[in-house]
Amino acid sequence: MGRSMAGHLLAAGHPLTVHTRTRSTAAELLDAGATWADTPAGVTERALVVATMVGYPQDLTDVILGPRGALAAMDEGTTLVDFTTSTPALAIDIAEIAATRGVESIDAPVSGGDVGARNAALSIMVGGDAVAVERVRPLLDRLGTTVVRQGGSGAGQHTKAVNQTLVAGTMIGLCEAIAYARTVGLDPATVLESVSGGAAASWALTNLAPRILRDDLEPGFAIKHFTKDLGIVLGECARAGITLPGVELAHRLYSDLTAAGHGRRGTQALIMAIDTGAPHAREH
Amino acid sequence: MGRSMAGHLLAAGHPLTVHTRTRSTAAELLDAGATWADTPAGVTERALVVATMVGYPQDLTDVILGPRGALAAMDEGTTLVDFTTSTPALAIDIAEIAATRGVESIDAPVSGGDVGARNAALSIMVGGDAVAVERVRPLLDRLGTTVVRQGGSGAGQHTKAVNQTLVAGTMIGLCEAIAYARTVGLDPATVLESVSGGAAASWALTNLAPRILRDDLEPGFAIKHFTKDLGIVLGECARAGITLPGVELAHRLYSDLTAAGHGRRGTQALIMAIDTGAPHAREH
Repeated sequence: MGRSMAGHLLAAGHPLTVHTRTRSTAAELLDAGATWADTPAGVTERALVVATMVGYPQDLTDVILGPRGALAAMDEGTTLVDFTTSTPALAIDIAEIAATRGVESIDAPVSGGDVGARNAALSIMVGGDAVAVERVRPLLDRLGTTVVRQGGSGAGQHTKAVNQTLVAGTMIGLCEAIAYARTVGLDPATVLESVSGGAAASWALTNLAPRILRDDLEPGFAIKHFTKDLGIVLGECARAGITLPGVELAHRLYSDLTAAGHGRRGTQALIMAIDTGAPHAREH
Repeated sequence: MGRSMAGHLLAAGHPLTVHTRTRSTAAELLDAGATWADTPAGVTERALVVATMVGYPQDLTDVILGPRGALAAMDEGTTLVDFTTSTPALAIDIAEIAATRGVESIDAPVSGGDVGARNAALSIMVGGDAVAVERVRPLLDRLGTTVVRQGGSGAGQHTKAVNQTLVAGTMIGLCEAIAYARTVGLDPATVLESVSGGAAASWALTNLAPRILRDDLEPGFAIKHFTKDLGIVLGECARAGITLPGVELAHRLYSDLTAAGHGRRGTQALIMAIDTGAPHAREH
């Protein structure tokens, strides 16, 4: 996703310096005129805006706060934009540390997946200082169709948590529904004709049910990342003293799939946890 | 819903005889030219098609199979259409008993709620003999925009179970997401701007989230009926030897709301189970 997003900025005429763990990932961008940096700190030179998109909160800590991380090398008055789905607490920590250096930090996790990144059709959920957000909005508008500031630091991450909570429920319903249809001998494709237009309708039903029916479990959005995101939601719930049993259930099912080696499959592979659970349960 | 549906048939010029437990419910239909019958059996006189829509499977047994029920009074060659959301097993039982009298019975549960019934925009999920279904299709087309035969007797009910399984997951996700947003101090209305257009999108998010945000918990579709429907799904799962933990969770939450006296509220009142659960849990 980061490659697609960086490509849009480059295509819009912004000079771009990039760093990735695996340089070959950046080959297309370098061919298109981007400059290579050997470290995260290296991308900050002459940069007014530094953007990060990595896998996990720990990666983010390394890339931004680590000894060769970006923040220590950033100039006063510049802006850090993090697109990673991470914890609200880390977003707040980074913003506070950045502020001591005169740098504004914005959390801006996205939804829309690979396709949304390629088509510059992401929803970008933004947390941070209102003036700083307006300063980088022209860049964000190059990457997404829905760019909404949700509040101060961490509010973007909290909004992404809301998004993933919605997706968790929808995915459970979707995969259980298909498992049920198959079990009782209905034709799932015909069932979709009946259920797709009404109160059961969802993006997942429209876009992921057909993939499940043709046994296409490729990502879309990978289970290992969704498991991480749901873990973040549960961490925030524990912190806030609330219990979300649907998110807990989804996290358990997706964690089991990750543990079983299915972390690189798409979220629709949840069908494997529903389909295969029952015969095992009966064996005991 | 039955009143709206009967009204469409009457408006289309079909002579109509009606029976309800509470005669006043039928006043509009009687004013519009329908004939009153004192018993379910009474509606069958000169009827080519007898339709039922009641609350619970036990009501259906009474109305169709009971001593003053419809079936015993129906002529050979006529057709019974049941719009109730009921069990696949009862649909099959009724069809088998009907067959011994030369009557075809079709299970035809609907989705779309009060509004769908009023606007003749229901999805009608049909199970039964293919020829019999084609015979009544012109009537069904007066009531719904999506009329799909899913298979033999019980297949309509099974498809409705799929529909409610999808809804169960979506409702859990929706109410947990709003509970989370409120808990962490986001503005839920602004959050909806970020999450409504992407992978988290659903009919429930579009139609029920705004009601929750303005504390409108009126039905729509009542919790007591949804609880019944989810109980049917779980009964079928037990019969088939599968476990659907999301449906189990939804059934438990909705049963608790029904037990607490909230059965007449709309399904979006699930937010009460999520919102109020946490403070109680913390008290222990």
